[in-house]
Amino acid sequence: MSREILVELTNMCMVYEGSKVLVQRRSLEHGWPGVTFPGGHVEPGESVTQSVIREVREETGLTLAHPRLCGVKDWMNDGGSRYIVFLYKCDTFSGELKSSEEGEVFWAERASLPSMNLSSGMEETFRVFFEDDISELSYYRENPDDGWQIVLE
Amino acid sequence: MSREILVELTNMCMVYEGSKVLVQRRSLEHGWPGVTFPGGHVEPGESVTQSVIREVREETGLTLAHPRLCGVKDWMNDGGSRYIVFLYKCDTFSGELKSSEEGEVFWAERASLPSMNLSSGMEETFRVFFEDDISELSYYRENPDDGWQIVLE
Repeated sequence: MSREILVELTNMCMVYEGSKVLVQRRSLEHGWPGVTFPGGHVEPGESVTQSVIREVREETGLTLAHPRLCGVKDWMNDGGSRYIVFLYKCDTFSGELKSSEEGEVFWAERASLPSMNLSSGMEETFRVFFEDDISELSYYRENPDDGWQIVLE
Repeated sequence: MSREILVELTNMCMVYEGSKVLVQRRSLEHGWPGVTFPGGHVEPGESVTQSVIREVREETGLTLAHPRLCGVKDWMNDGGSRYIVFLYKCDTFSGELKSSEEGEVFWAERASLPSMNLSSGMEETFRVFFEDDISELSYYRENPDDGWQIVLE
């Protein structure tokens, strides 16, 4: 008995070194404008971890040695499909920092993040990355006319 | 630009207390026969964490206070869809142990698991639960005629 539904599978990774985190300033034309962490889609045939390594390499020039899953972010679209972001963290990497056309990447002090022009939803997403006892951020609304509720678990 | 694919979303949870873990002995008629951890499907509209709490309650009688995501298990089906199991752990719970028709549940010493008649794939799945530096188990094969390769990352 298969119970498949339509899902968009994506990833996001916090690359960090001590108190610094690697952020990307996305431009308006590439969607989700503002400061965020690098990430992208999970492609067919690759594991989630492999998709994280590929996206971070494409967007930052760095090669991650050992990214680890730390949480998940998800919501139901009104049509019944689901959107899932696998959240990873990693402090082991090699290579030289290099921005891509998707946005400038640079190291920032973690404490300075709240004062930045963040990409939509990043404020609550940080909590999954930073707080060990939170491993899911989901958005929920009963009806398409309602606002989204933020659920942290 | 939506990039949705067909996915079957499921969960599995290791409920533990010290060196003991809560296992379920599944009967042949309910699929995946053998000793496993409780779990089931993520239903539309619920968060992944909520699906874990519901499944563990249905299958063990226990109410989890704070389950946490510790990894993911996944593979591509030959038709191009994906199967995903969100792996959770939890040592905070209340209620009284009660088996369901899906299988008898009981506490077992973690060290005794390898000698049990395990459900298919549980041996490698345990590594994600037990080893902090592993957060994904994926199965991979190039062609439908090949055997599955186990990838732990």
